[in-house]
Amino acid sequence: MKDVAARAGVGLKTVSRVVNEEPGVTPDTAARVQAAIDALGFRRNDSARLLRTRRTASVGLVLEDLADPFYAALSRAVEDVARSHGALLFTGSSAEDPRREQELVLAFCARRVDGLVVVPAGEDHRYLLPEIAAGVATVFVDRPAGRLDADVVLTDNAGGTREGVAHLIAHGHRRIGFIGDQPGIHTAGERLRGYREAMAAAGLAVRPEWYAMGPTTPERVEAALDAMLNGTEPVTALFAGNNRVTVTAVRVLAARPDPVALVGFDDFELADVLDPAITVVAQDAPGIGRVAAQQLFRRLDGIAAEEATRTELPVRLIERGSGEIPPAR
Amino acid sequence: MKDVAARAGVGLKTVSRVVNEEPGVTPDTAARVQAAIDALGFRRNDSARLLRTRRTASVGLVLEDLADPFYAALSRAVEDVARSHGALLFTGSSAEDPRREQELVLAFCARRVDGLVVVPAGEDHRYLLPEIAAGVATVFVDRPAGRLDADVVLTDNAGGTREGVAHLIAHGHRRIGFIGDQPGIHTAGERLRGYREAMAAAGLAVRPEWYAMGPTTPERVEAALDAMLNGTEPVTALFAGNNRVTVTAVRVLAARPDPVALVGFDDFELADVLDPAITVVAQDAPGIGRVAAQQLFRRLDGIAAEEATRTELPVRLIERGSGEIPPAR
Repeated sequence: MKDVAARAGVGLKTVSRVVNEEPGVTPDTAARVQAAIDALGFRRNDSARLLRTRRTASVGLVLEDLADPFYAALSRAVEDVARSHGALLFTGSSAEDPRREQELVLAFCARRVDGLVVVPAGEDHRYLLPEIAAGVATVFVDRPAGRLDADVVLTDNAGGTREGVAHLIAHGHRRIGFIGDQPGIHTAGERLRGYREAMAAAGLAVRPEWYAMGPTTPERVEAALDAMLNGTEPVTALFAGNNRVTVTAVRVLAARPDPVALVGFDDFELADVLDPAITVVAQDAPGIGRVAAQQLFRRLDGIAAEEATRTELPVRLIERGSGEIPPAR
Repeated sequence: MKDVAARAGVGLKTVSRVVNEEPGVTPDTAARVQAAIDALGFRRNDSARLLRTRRTASVGLVLEDLADPFYAALSRAVEDVARSHGALLFTGSSAEDPRREQELVLAFCARRVDGLVVVPAGEDHRYLLPEIAAGVATVFVDRPAGRLDADVVLTDNAGGTREGVAHLIAHGHRRIGFIGDQPGIHTAGERLRGYREAMAAAGLAVRPEWYAMGPTTPERVEAALDAMLNGTEPVTALFAGNNRVTVTAVRVLAARPDPVALVGFDDFELADVLDPAITVVAQDAPGIGRVAAQQLFRRLDGIAAEEATRTELPVRLIERGSGEIPPAR
């Protein structure tokens, strides 16, 4: 601004008036200042303002994979809430690697983000204690933090899976398979629990070859499903533990002559136009992102309760056809 | 670090040795320093280091919608390249609003990002001149910048559409519809051009009711498609201008008794398990993001040619069934 003032031959106050569109400057002077600004390429720098407020008006979002539709929808919702509070968003994908999660979180903190929204990959988040003590608001989403008492926004994973598996049982199935994500992942464990509880509630035993937990790569899901369908007591229905599993299951089942019932956790695009259309337990990805971001800004504004909160969002069973197929004779 | 040194009763150099895991510190002293660090909640702050290098090791990515699968895949690729260069990523969605694009870009610049990857929404990017002059590397993706000579990474939109429409013509279609995004969007205009060129090359006239440009909301696409299918000269095939249009077209066509051929621009998940499976002109979303981010870091490292570059990535026609349906009699 000093350079602009010198070039235009005016005082600093005049430059400030022009930049902030305040009155008291003649059109001629304003034009001279504007020409100096254009010539010098005046650039806004938020550092000073942000130093004064001790805020950086930025939020760090760490999730598993930005390219996964579930997290993409969640991210957009966090962005929209951040934007309504005038904050910018850092994003990063942990790729389910605890070391990479910590690296990203601490890198965001080193840039002095005001707050964090984290889909945790690791099991111990005590590394965040100094950051939280220093005032970084932190909300976990999709899975709770490990060994740390912090706000968390979850889906009712066990309850949703119970409902989906009970739906298959109500349609006559007794041999039901479950394919889930890696057992260390909170949501995967909770959904497996829901599966076991629904089977137990109906008095059905679960054979070890009927459930498989692991990476959700197409190869792994295909192999697990093949084993369930071709064993001595083949399953007549499958509960798919997330949208990655469902998509591969749809491909595998489409190539088989005999129909197998399918209910998937997570809704996905075009589930309704497949043949059969896919019955799902839908969770609210934008809702989870929105509720988490809103809680973050309540903390930042000092209007949240001191205790950590736990919010569990309900799911919705959407019947479309694949979950209502009766068992093959 | 001074506070840590004072509390532990050691010199600054000793603290530095412990933090950087250098030799020359007795286990007892190291433990004392560690205890002081734990008690004081030592937090890394990148500001000083970054001021020294005059880099912030951050990149701003502005795209249309983080929740769109095409942009989600592109974002993840940009993130991976940034990560390999030790840089963090700011992301923001313009929602196709030029004012919001400029707001986001300038907000990222005010945080002193080293570089920008921008899917432009606006038509005039001269507002970026001062930033570029100040050293902010800028690469446009998906669409070129407006009134600004800058690096750009594109898909061969016109060529890809020509190929897709020619494919429908080769399967006997003469009355072919085209539904595209808003005409102001570069990719939408280029694809419309490809459609017109393919029709002209085959000596086919295009009736005004056979093409429709506008927002890709389900309501708009459905209305446009209904008009094309129920006019006096109804189309027997549709070229869908992007994945949003294709998804709605699949829904509308699935509900009709007579088959209509369909080729869509952009591949999408489960296109291969639909009935019929969907023939698409596939663009390489991760490839576009990767090439753009690599060019950005070449600029930052001073190893890019001075002139702005224009890279056009090829597309791939994937025949799956819907594009090979013959015209209804």
